[in-house]
Amino acid sequence: MPASDAADQPDQPWNRQRLRSTNERLLLDRLRGLGAASRAQLARETGLSKPTVSSALAALAAVGLVREVGTHAPERGRTAVLYAPDPAAGYALGVDVGRGWLRVAVADLDGTLVARADVRNRARGSGALADLVVSTARQVVADSGVDPAEVVHGVVGTPGVYDEKQRRVRYAMHLPGWGRAGLLEDLREALGVPLEMHNDANLAALGEYTYGVGAGSRLFAYILIGTGLGMGVVSEGRLFTGAHGLAGEIGFLPWPGQPRPERLEDAVSGVAVVEAARRFGMSGQLTAKAVFEAARHGNPAALRAVRLEGERIAHTVAAAAAVLDPDLVVLGGGVGHSVDLLLGPVREHLRALTPLRPRISPSRLGEDAVLLGAVATALGTARDTVFERRSARS
Amino acid sequence: MPASDAADQPDQPWNRQRLRSTNERLLLDRLRGLGAASRAQLARETGLSKPTVSSALAALAAVGLVREVGTHAPERGRTAVLYAPDPAAGYALGVDVGRGWLRVAVADLDGTLVARADVRNRARGSGALADLVVSTARQVVADSGVDPAEVVHGVVGTPGVYDEKQRRVRYAMHLPGWGRAGLLEDLREALGVPLEMHNDANLAALGEYTYGVGAGSRLFAYILIGTGLGMGVVSEGRLFTGAHGLAGEIGFLPWPGQPRPERLEDAVSGVAVVEAARRFGMSGQLTAKAVFEAARHGNPAALRAVRLEGERIAHTVAAAAAVLDPDLVVLGGGVGHSVDLLLGPVREHLRALTPLRPRISPSRLGEDAVLLGAVATALGTARDTVFERRSARS
Repeated sequence: MPASDAADQPDQPWNRQRLRSTNERLLLDRLRGLGAASRAQLARETGLSKPTVSSALAALAAVGLVREVGTHAPERGRTAVLYAPDPAAGYALGVDVGRGWLRVAVADLDGTLVARADVRNRARGSGALADLVVSTARQVVADSGVDPAEVVHGVVGTPGVYDEKQRRVRYAMHLPGWGRAGLLEDLREALGVPLEMHNDANLAALGEYTYGVGAGSRLFAYILIGTGLGMGVVSEGRLFTGAHGLAGEIGFLPWPGQPRPERLEDAVSGVAVVEAARRFGMSGQLTAKAVFEAARHGNPAALRAVRLEGERIAHTVAAAAAVLDPDLVVLGGGVGHSVDLLLGPVREHLRALTPLRPRISPSRLGEDAVLLGAVATALGTARDTVFERRSARS
Repeated sequence: MPASDAADQPDQPWNRQRLRSTNERLLLDRLRGLGAASRAQLARETGLSKPTVSSALAALAAVGLVREVGTHAPERGRTAVLYAPDPAAGYALGVDVGRGWLRVAVADLDGTLVARADVRNRARGSGALADLVVSTARQVVADSGVDPAEVVHGVVGTPGVYDEKQRRVRYAMHLPGWGRAGLLEDLREALGVPLEMHNDANLAALGEYTYGVGAGSRLFAYILIGTGLGMGVVSEGRLFTGAHGLAGEIGFLPWPGQPRPERLEDAVSGVAVVEAARRFGMSGQLTAKAVFEAARHGNPAALRAVRLEGERIAHTVAAAAAVLDPDLVVLGGGVGHSVDLLLGPVREHLRALTPLRPRISPSRLGEDAVLLGAVATALGTARDTVFERRSARS
């Protein structure tokens, strides 16, 4: 950029400063990939000169973005100081709002969880649930010992889809009142943290792609089976969200049942497992978890319910396979968690249903997938924010 | 590139020649977008200097890639010669192999069809069908008056998916024997034209995106309903093919019927329309077209069959909507052609099935969509080939 242009941009007075900032960002990102590295290694990795690397590292260290983490003594040559990003330069908040459980975590910039809480969601109505989110998040931040001002970004996973225009969550039928306009702004204001909301299955898919079994898949579908039913799709490393962010809302797949069509969600979710078990003769206070537990101990009614659930999940996988052609389908969520019992029936029914049979795998992250996907997504923004804030100080 | 490097590349001896070729290609592509333009206009549009434009146009004209098409006399200033790409510099072949019809067209480089044939496919077995493709394509080329050597690339649309590794078409159940290995090579050899094979619904989606109602859609699903059932998906202008090219093979969607699950294709295709009409009381030699014709004249059995077809198509659209979230669904193919009768029932059933209701539109290209998609795809390669061959002559 010629000097005459720079004069027109009052908030970026010097080319030199912009260039320095770009180099620093490049170094910081590379360091995050490497974990820890010496000046010489960074010069090789980035193509920057050693003096440039040295002064950039000094600047990053001065604003607390990078720290010395030890020394490396090679067999030949001089001992070198090792640098790494300072994980404590900022924090990210992840929240998973589920019908049964609310999960909240705070992570440092390395992605390490520094505090976490999993609490039962017994809230009736969206006001109580929003209060629970706020009080739990405040408690987790307090437990972490982190200054609340250092929590720079948060992501909330929710059933349904956040509609930016209407400023409300749509299609979250299992959370009564959760669709009211302004909910996200209220949470933002109460917590004092910039927040985004994303579909839970999408976050779980990103979590499983980033930390779990999805890595390297070309087209990867994560089916979240719990109180509800959802799917997240990662195509060549990017979330596939459709034209309006509703891709993967497979709970709405028609399920031609008797006496009239119901939604696939009603046929596959945890509630359906309990209903089937009851129909086959189980009684008492049942949960999906209890039915799977009973099946593990050989209860015939429970085993029939699990077989039926396997058949219905097979239909779900067959639909995803016919429309999307994934190379990997991951089963996750509360019901997906019992995949040891389900995988056999799912595969068997799939063979009878369709020649298109993607690889099926249990989730590696289990019930943490949504929370870890929320943390990973929040971290992306948190790292940007922390860099911008701190480099502005220099 | 320094001169020392160029010496290592015997087939690209001169930088100057490569640069000239790049400029010529840039000009030719821009001319194709503009239709016809003067030197001055091209210089403005490309950022090349007028002398560079002049010499590039002269070179392109010398090898027959560009021709003078007239003059432009502006109100002020000098009369300018207008140039355009020469459409007769090469030709592309498009083929649509359907169970009922075989369609073949030859197009010039502008995309104008110069000859075309639509013949009934009465072939039994893949040998006879391959012979029919070859004889029809030869006849169409002969009818066009084009030297067969000038047909530089062809694309064949087929049900199913061409598997490069196994060198055969898979999942084309309505064309017996069509899945044998080496079929495409045999066609190539007999026709003496480089050929590719692609899924018919994918080509139809590209055709409808390029020439029809799909233009500008963010996520567009084309449902091809005829002898079979298929779907092509165009996401942000690119074909969405899944991990193995099988995305949109919705014929394999399970359709939980009585007494056992069948495939959606068996419930939705033209054969199902005829079966339903018979069940409701129609008799005689029936085709799907005849059933729709009878419905237009108020035949009650035909009307019931059409209503049922509408309901089943609504299920198909609902499945596509829940998984993909398209902003537009186009109904095409032989059955989709009767969309005037179907659109009402489809929309009505969709309202009962799902809150996710994308815009539904009839195909603008009708039964030509696969053929025109094949031509459009073949043209992309043909333009490259013609440019490379002709610029090598200069």
